[in-house]
Amino acid sequence: MARYSALPQKELEALHRELRARYESRKGMGLKLDMSRGKPATDQLDIVMGMLDVLRSDASLFAADGIDCRNYGDFDGIPECKTIFCDMLGVSFDELFLCGNSSLAVMYDAIGKMMLHGVRPGAEPWCKLKEIKFLCPSPGYDRHFAITERFGFELIPIEMGADGPNMDQVERLVAGDPSIKGIWCVPLYSNPTGVSYSDETVRRLARMRTAASDFMIMWDNAYAIHHLYDEEKDQDRLLNILAECKKAGDPDRVMMFTSTSKVSFPGGGIAAFACSKNVMKRMKKLLSIQTIGFDKLNMLRHARYFGDYAGMREHMKKHAALLRPKFETVLNAFETELAGKGVAEWTNPHGGYFISLDVMDGCAKRVVQLCKDAGVSLTSAGATYPYGVDPRDRNIRIAPTYPPIEELEQAVSLLCLCVELAAVEKLLHRK
Amino acid sequence: MARYSALPQKELEALHRELRARYESRKGMGLKLDMSRGKPATDQLDIVMGMLDVLRSDASLFAADGIDCRNYGDFDGIPECKTIFCDMLGVSFDELFLCGNSSLAVMYDAIGKMMLHGVRPGAEPWCKLKEIKFLCPSPGYDRHFAITERFGFELIPIEMGADGPNMDQVERLVAGDPSIKGIWCVPLYSNPTGVSYSDETVRRLARMRTAASDFMIMWDNAYAIHHLYDEEKDQDRLLNILAECKKAGDPDRVMMFTSTSKVSFPGGGIAAFACSKNVMKRMKKLLSIQTIGFDKLNMLRHARYFGDYAGMREHMKKHAALLRPKFETVLNAFETELAGKGVAEWTNPHGGYFISLDVMDGCAKRVVQLCKDAGVSLTSAGATYPYGVDPRDRNIRIAPTYPPIEELEQAVSLLCLCVELAAVEKLLHRK
Repeated sequence: MARYSALPQKELEALHRELRARYESRKGMGLKLDMSRGKPATDQLDIVMGMLDVLRSDASLFAADGIDCRNYGDFDGIPECKTIFCDMLGVSFDELFLCGNSSLAVMYDAIGKMMLHGVRPGAEPWCKLKEIKFLCPSPGYDRHFAITERFGFELIPIEMGADGPNMDQVERLVAGDPSIKGIWCVPLYSNPTGVSYSDETVRRLARMRTAASDFMIMWDNAYAIHHLYDEEKDQDRLLNILAECKKAGDPDRVMMFTSTSKVSFPGGGIAAFACSKNVMKRMKKLLSIQTIGFDKLNMLRHARYFGDYAGMREHMKKHAALLRPKFETVLNAFETELAGKGVAEWTNPHGGYFISLDVMDGCAKRVVQLCKDAGVSLTSAGATYPYGVDPRDRNIRIAPTYPPIEELEQAVSLLCLCVELAAVEKLLHRK
Repeated sequence: MARYSALPQKELEALHRELRARYESRKGMGLKLDMSRGKPATDQLDIVMGMLDVLRSDASLFAADGIDCRNYGDFDGIPECKTIFCDMLGVSFDELFLCGNSSLAVMYDAIGKMMLHGVRPGAEPWCKLKEIKFLCPSPGYDRHFAITERFGFELIPIEMGADGPNMDQVERLVAGDPSIKGIWCVPLYSNPTGVSYSDETVRRLARMRTAASDFMIMWDNAYAIHHLYDEEKDQDRLLNILAECKKAGDPDRVMMFTSTSKVSFPGGGIAAFACSKNVMKRMKKLLSIQTIGFDKLNMLRHARYFGDYAGMREHMKKHAALLRPKFETVLNAFETELAGKGVAEWTNPHGGYFISLDVMDGCAKRVVQLCKDAGVSLTSAGATYPYGVDPRDRNIRIAPTYPPIEELEQAVSLLCLCVELAAVEKLLHRK
């Protein structure tokens, strides 16, 4: 197959007519499919229904430490549930805090606390400063960027590579500018590229010299156990950044976050954060002003259902079995329809919730619009970049989890057609 | 019974010896009782256990609007649960938002949003201002005061009377000082006095002229349905402040809060806030940055269990049956042990979680210490005032809900003894 950019004008024109005709006929099919958000499918919720039966009225509702989970108490979470998350994040009991159902809310709250009260020892509240900047590895998670945009920070895009953010760029920036206060990271199966940070990247983040003494790495380990393949050799591994920060002498520079939103129920999971003892002490003091405690019954429900961390990992294999064919459906279609044409590149993630598709420069918006007009919703083009602006207008986040496979096949086949069509349109107008 | 202040020195001295001897003997009994916080007792949790059985794995998990409660969706809560809270607060669907398990966290977050983003239309973020003051009707709720203290506001105590805060004082202050940005209110069965705001008080709050255009009434209706008596004539009633604010032409000046922490489970309830459509639009926009949604499974659990608002009110009669004897135990002891001696005054609440006890000026700390030394924990003296400082050192918040009645009898009997002892100590040293 020749690369489209090498085709003579005549052939391009013929190809355009053919693609356009195919597109019009597909448009007539009245599709209505949603690949816009990383939402688990119904069958993924069905596999965890047993959780609703473990806390019936005849069950004991006392946590392992004797606290009645129905009442106030255990401010930082119940021990059996904390244990699971400690094992997941590789932290100790006094480095972890269990919260409500949304890790995003915990991250928002953490940034809010840095703005209003200061979180790292001795840190000034950021709201008193004229200028705050935040590093945003891109393509990245739109909701992360939205939080820091909402707080009025200047967002600085950082190039994402196969090992994580471009660390040369990161190190140069943070060393020179004290108004750069932090960085957003989805370190394992990154949203949307599926890339995992290499050991070297984690170590450089832990060790780099920052001009800001209150620099904070927002480490959103959302997909900590969300592997697509069961064998360890096929799974990405992540270095423990808190341990690396300790080794580097600055344990206070990282806050880790995770949740069970894509383990149990997106509408009713448990979120957690972890950090150094120093920062935790400060966070607990601030949190004690804000609440008497989070929902311990739901923590107990999770702990009783999964049993322990091994049980939770075992459960994740059921998710993998449901998600793997969906990812493969998309990747196979890309391979069959797009490879060798010079119109797109994509990632091949071993976990997480997304595939990142780079179409021809300047074509992402057009592809998303073409798909939309034919009944397939994708994440908005640009959403994966700060301020929603993709400088090359090429990145599209593919969320294959929600639609059933037959619908996914239809959707991705249309998507491939639109990618080709947009590319040919562009090539026809290049002069 | 003569008032102690009228007793001759000799009689006072004899009384002191007798009280001291009784105190020492009680101290030897090794009591260990807790009346420090407004915590429901275990029997109050037992009456709601059925809630744990309504959402078993064989139940439908779709909300009334067809949303799968297990997944993302219904950002502002599921309709059947919203309906219950709308009925409770007297607001419409688009004036209400359901949150997580803690209304305190919602209040903290609301103040945080006023600090960082501004909430009322056109309001500047308060963190940009040099000075913020907040009115604190006192005695009041220590956790309210702690939030605004934490944000660095200057707390201005307002005298609490039998109809609510002293409105002459409130009106004068808010009219003259634009840095006064709001007021904390527990309008029904106030914490700790049990006083409910009169219609006149509510109307004056709604109508008063405020120098600050972004003044906010923080209306914590924590005890909206927490009556101690079942007959309507024995229940306090509260005017709908949002309706009054609308009539007065400034619907944006109030945010209402409530929760089921003392209806279902303190560790696993539902919190809500309500406000004008204008302010709600702004809050939703800000909240959408922060979370994809709160725990809908728990909302569904509550809605299915209570059925509707009438069902929830009916359930509250069971709480009343358990709490009434506890309140009466305390009040009867006060009447028997303290009346006519000029050593204390107290409130006689018809609902809520607290009784407010005013001992002789300058004696509250001493009473709390005496009780503590003999094994009975009370809320710290001063806690009901801004900065923990009761200017007359006389107010003690009594929380009768948690201990079983036999323990409560012992605790309150000791408390009365300590009130007398502290008063006599004071009278002996008055010269």
